[in-house]
Amino acid sequence: MSIKADFTQGFVRNHWYAAAWASEVQERPFARTILGDKIVLFRQPDGTIGALEDRCPHRLAPLSMGECADGGLRCGYHGMVFNAAGDCIGIPGQDIIPPTARTRAFSATERYGLIWVWTGDVEPDPDSLPILKGYGEDGWALMDGGYQHHAGNYRIEIENLMDPAHTTFLHKETIGNRAAKDVPVEVSSYDRGLKAFRWIENVPPSPLDQKSFDFGAGRVDRQIAFHFELPATSFVDIAVIPAGMERSEGNLMRGGIRAFSYKFLTPETERSTHFFWLHLRNYRLNDQEFEATLRANLEKTFAEDQVMVTAIQGEQEATGLRQRTAIAIDRAPIMALRLIDRMIASEKESGETGTECEPVPA
Amino acid sequence: MSIKADFTQGFVRNHWYAAAWASEVQERPFARTILGDKIVLFRQPDGTIGALEDRCPHRLAPLSMGECADGGLRCGYHGMVFNAAGDCIGIPGQDIIPPTARTRAFSATERYGLIWVWTGDVEPDPDSLPILKGYGEDGWALMDGGYQHHAGNYRIEIENLMDPAHTTFLHKETIGNRAAKDVPVEVSSYDRGLKAFRWIENVPPSPLDQKSFDFGAGRVDRQIAFHFELPATSFVDIAVIPAGMERSEGNLMRGGIRAFSYKFLTPETERSTHFFWLHLRNYRLNDQEFEATLRANLEKTFAEDQVMVTAIQGEQEATGLRQRTAIAIDRAPIMALRLIDRMIASEKESGETGTECEPVPA
Amino acid sequence: MSIKADFTQGFVRNHWYAAAWASEVQERPFARTILGDKIVLFRQPDGTIGALEDRCPHRLAPLSMGECADGGLRCGYHGMVFNAAGDCIGIPGQDIIPPTARTRAFSATERYGLIWVWTGDVEPDPDSLPILKGYGEDGWALMDGGYQHHAGNYRIEIENLMDPAHTTFLHKETIGNRAAKDVPVEVSSYDRGLKAFRWIENVPPSPLDQKSFDFGAGRVDRQIAFHFELPATSFVDIAVIPAGMERSEGNLMRGGIRAFSYKFLTPETERSTHFFWLHLRNYRLNDQEFEATLRANLEKTFAEDQVMVTAIQGEQEATGLRQRTAIAIDRAPIMALRLIDRMIASEKESGETGTECEPVPA
Repeated sequence: MSIKADFTQGFVRNHWYAAAWASEVQERPFARTILGDKIVLFRQPDGTIGALEDRCPHRLAPLSMGECADGGLRCGYHGMVFNAAGDCIGIPGQDIIPPTARTRAFSATERYGLIWVWTGDVEPDPDSLPILKGYGEDGWALMDGGYQHHAGNYRIEIENLMDPAHTTFLHKETIGNRAAKDVPVEVSSYDRGLKAFRWIENVPPSPLDQKSFDFGAGRVDRQIAFHFELPATSFVDIAVIPAGMERSEGNLMRGGIRAFSYKFLTPETERSTHFFWLHLRNYRLNDQEFEATLRANLEKTFAEDQVMVTAIQGEQEATGLRQRTAIAIDRAPIMALRLIDRMIASEKESGETGTECEPVPA
Repeated sequence: MSIKADFTQGFVRNHWYAAAWASEVQERPFARTILGDKIVLFRQPDGTIGALEDRCPHRLAPLSMGECADGGLRCGYHGMVFNAAGDCIGIPGQDIIPPTARTRAFSATERYGLIWVWTGDVEPDPDSLPILKGYGEDGWALMDGGYQHHAGNYRIEIENLMDPAHTTFLHKETIGNRAAKDVPVEVSSYDRGLKAFRWIENVPPSPLDQKSFDFGAGRVDRQIAFHFELPATSFVDIAVIPAGMERSEGNLMRGGIRAFSYKFLTPETERSTHFFWLHLRNYRLNDQEFEATLRANLEKTFAEDQVMVTAIQGEQEATGLRQRTAIAIDRAPIMALRLIDRMIASEKESGETGTECEPVPA
Repeated sequence: MSIKADFTQGFVRNHWYAAAWASEVQERPFARTILGDKIVLFRQPDGTIGALEDRCPHRLAPLSMGECADGGLRCGYHGMVFNAAGDCIGIPGQDIIPPTARTRAFSATERYGLIWVWTGDVEPDPDSLPILKGYGEDGWALMDGGYQHHAGNYRIEIENLMDPAHTTFLHKETIGNRAAKDVPVEVSSYDRGLKAFRWIENVPPSPLDQKSFDFGAGRVDRQIAFHFELPATSFVDIAVIPAGMERSEGNLMRGGIRAFSYKFLTPETERSTHFFWLHLRNYRLNDQEFEATLRANLEKTFAEDQVMVTAIQGEQEATGLRQRTAIAIDRAPIMALRLIDRMIASEKESGETGTECEPVPA
């Protein structure tokens, strides 16, 4: 068997994608390419976010080289000013603004400390932003602001994030657990999503678990549920309790440690992905030292994924293939990719596929 | 409207192009690609310059890796020696020199501290070198030796250099003047050239003007004339006088400050340009400290252009376009590009287009 | 005349190629591309070397990112284990191993401190490893472990190594000898090999010779024989004796200095070559200080070749040519390339050409 690699399948476009941390977009405009579109994010005078194609329609200067000024985003080359609708609202030295003096605009909104951009041509649905469990609730500590650039196609990321089995080997110094390696993964699907679940009984705590909670000298039971909410949210739900404790939702929430690890995957191009992460936990809430350790462990873990994703991208490009054999743990990744294929196909059928950086009509 | 970007239009070839500062070509041969041709410049025993295709005809070793020796340029691989006519004049270990042992030669000359190379196949005209105002005259201070590599097509440079309007925004910390932004630009053409002219009255001096001359607390009148001498010389003529002084040529020359800023643009490839600059001024002639400030300001200004030109080259490559809208200040740049197009077309019609690095005939 | 450059001629495949120094492959697996194939070398539990295509058949993760563990090479992504035959011998979480779970295997062996890999599809012949004169014998000092990466096609290397004439110019500060430049080169061929020979009489010793032996104030006679053993071994046999001493094999071996300089050239890709070197000498056997000097001189010499080979590769790519003229010293290089062409053609005729990284059949 050989499964071919294909970098031209495109993306689900009618969706809110995380484009930047809000902290990245302050006084200065900020450039980021998402789904192949070069976008500039900027603050309007009222503090809300504008998102435009990052090219002045005049000589194509990146608007991100300009400034937030004169009531909009001012190009750094000749001072043309644009509002968040993409309309030019000022040209130095002339009064008449030609109708071609406009640039493509994207809907943008701010939530969970992130700036989200809608990349499709269907009207954006503000209710379709991900809903994060525990976010902003008492008893939960938030760690956010995480970002990595991964030099691999978004599908390689999804395969990785729907695959609990790799943690034993790739992340053996952080979240990996050798004891887990032969425990089967249960896969179930739900509306626009998928879950790959493992319940591991009576094992030693992982290196990171040991730093998180005092399990004494004892062994633990461990739930790890890899959720994927289509098309771009990964959510890992981890619970660790003392071995043998009853597996009730109450015990999973209060009997040991519980954490929700979110990643928002935003395709940059067909060959690279923005990886935003935030982490919620219900233990060691105000322990700064522990939080620094936890952050370092997660960054190390995600950097291990980054290295692997980059390597696999390279091999797919070199061989034109994605796989030469299939094994049991492929079930959830393959299901996730099929769901995405179906969403893309459905967008293409309905003609609602976004404009993929077409020039502004003349 | 959309104007397409085209990197294959070629160059005016029957012209002297600045290839190097004379100080760059001393004991050692020196390599530089101009108009797509890899060229080696070297000093002959009599001190005059030779310019050859930078490839030994034997195994194609770059001759610039060799030495000025044995009466010519000696290849660093097997010691074959070439004269400035491109003929091999010595092969170690053999007496007979095969007729194929020659490399392409270019006419070269030295003037204004620069080495100029003729890139066309028409006989070079020594009188067609640019004539620099003030150069070598009493009462003028010369600042030369300036070089930058700009990663953009030569046409993007010309658009930039025929466009006084961008200085307000791109160069706001050096030569820019906010007060100038709404002053119209007068464009006039002359034999093989073009002028874009602004006369700005009663404005505060620019940051750099303030460092140049004691205008007291007062305002100034300011002439800025952007000349373009086809196909490769930009010449900016700046005069600043106290506001209200009579606008006579005498006052412009002696009433305040006057400067001639020359740039010689030499296409390296379709995607990059050599940017040589020299500067003449009639004030603070022997003030070394001021000269260091002036040099730093000019280098910063040109580096701002360099960043913008590089960015625009990238956008033109990404979109295949040059512009999506046109504004008033485009007049002079568009006229300049048309003149160049016409010169190239005329060379092509007459068949006098240079050889574009053809192999030496077998 | 013009000789075209051609990077698609391929390589002699049924041959042992040096792939790594044994010291490079210890506890950790080691990746190296040879003849276009990405290969991972690793130690089996018994210490012998395995060589596999450096891709896990599952998701194509480079096996070199894994570990020597579980009785074979364990993939760092999901823990699949492979033996040196390329068979998967373990998949965590499942008992059944699918027949597609295998990767391409190469024969490998260890000799002279090097790991040799057989890249063809004919059964490897253990007796076809190069035989090194003096290696392991009393009275000879060995300097090994030398490696350089040369960014040029393997044919450019061979031209360089069959060409005594270039040493005068390219290596003038180390092994070059101006006095030699007009001494003719005698070329002779033997079974699967070629020799380019120079006998130089009554010349001053080279800079490096002077550091090697006390020739007093006198002149020397000097033998330099460039051997090439097809398709990948270069062997330079140097003897320097006091000028006028009888030219007997006994005197050449004991009258002055004698050295055998070996290089093993392994194509990495069509555009790059691995350059392994080792050096045997019969003088200053235990002189560590001299050895450091000698090593520095040889590294400098080979680095000069590296720079030239890289430059010529660039020129061949830019022009599509290899030569525009031919000179007397080309005889041995041209003969060597013809022999290689003939070996490649003969492999192609017989269909014994290796698999060039074909995917494992489905």
